[in-house]
Amino acid sequence: MIQQIDHIAIAVSDLDEAAAFFAGQLGLEVGGIETVEEQKTKVAFIQVGQVRIELVQPTEPDSPVGKFIAKRGEGIHHIALRTDGIEQELSGLADKGVRLIDKEPKVGAHDARIAFVHPKSSHGVLLELCQPSK
Amino acid sequence: MIQQIDHIAIAVSDLDEAAAFFAGQLGLEVGGIETVEEQKTKVAFIQVGQVRIELVQPTEPDSPVGKFIAKRGEGIHHIALRTDGIEQELSGLADKGVRLIDKEPKVGAHDARIAFVHPKSSHGVLLELCQPSK
Repeated sequence: MIQQIDHIAIAVSDLDEAAAFFAGQLGLEVGGIETVEEQKTKVAFIQVGQVRIELVQPTEPDSPVGKFIAKRGEGIHHIALRTDGIEQELSGLADKGVRLIDKEPKVGAHDARIAFVHPKSSHGVLLELCQPSK
Repeated sequence: MIQQIDHIAIAVSDLDEAAAFFAGQLGLEVGGIETVEEQKTKVAFIQVGQVRIELVQPTEPDSPVGKFIAKRGEGIHHIALRTDGIEQELSGLADKGVRLIDKEPKVGAHDARIAFVHPKSSHGVLLELCQPSK
């Protein structure tokens, strides 16, 4: 079952500048910066009520987020929906003909299991399903 | 003060098809459809935990959302941050040199007072500030 929105990811060119905007101009609390090696990104999390905003800077231009920024510029990259049963969600979606980028969950930040739905199936929105580790 | 994410708006070409995806494939509960005359849109709300996903279909191609879809296709249109003091937020942002689309709040759906920050200032993200009516 989908429980809540887990996070909204924003692709940015410069994490420090973006963090300064969200902290300094909007008064939000930006957490520490983490590197996610396998995604070739650096990320910073901002808790806003129940949801996190995740600022994502590519560390390599040929990474997925680097290519996104080269093509479209900075902006909202994906929305993540939190589920308590990611395998069940994925097989249900596949059965209904929804196009999946990841048919099986992979491991994301904080050991969450994550999988992406193809935006062709979800009205142009890159949707992540994620199940946090216990 | 920014309290939480109020909603995430997704620009869609066909509200019924998009609603069918979010309800039928993802199992989310989609509310009734409303027309917002002054924005030339039809909208449907989906409550997901604390946050609403707002599906927005333009009713005219020359509306802001119609132009967005013509240029970029369907996808995430904006993020709305809920505040308890929209005038104060706006004057604070203006003082800090943030570019605003709306220097004064205007009235949005459900009589909320809303204003947009220019995406040039907010790292490519169209940000809405909104203060719900009491």
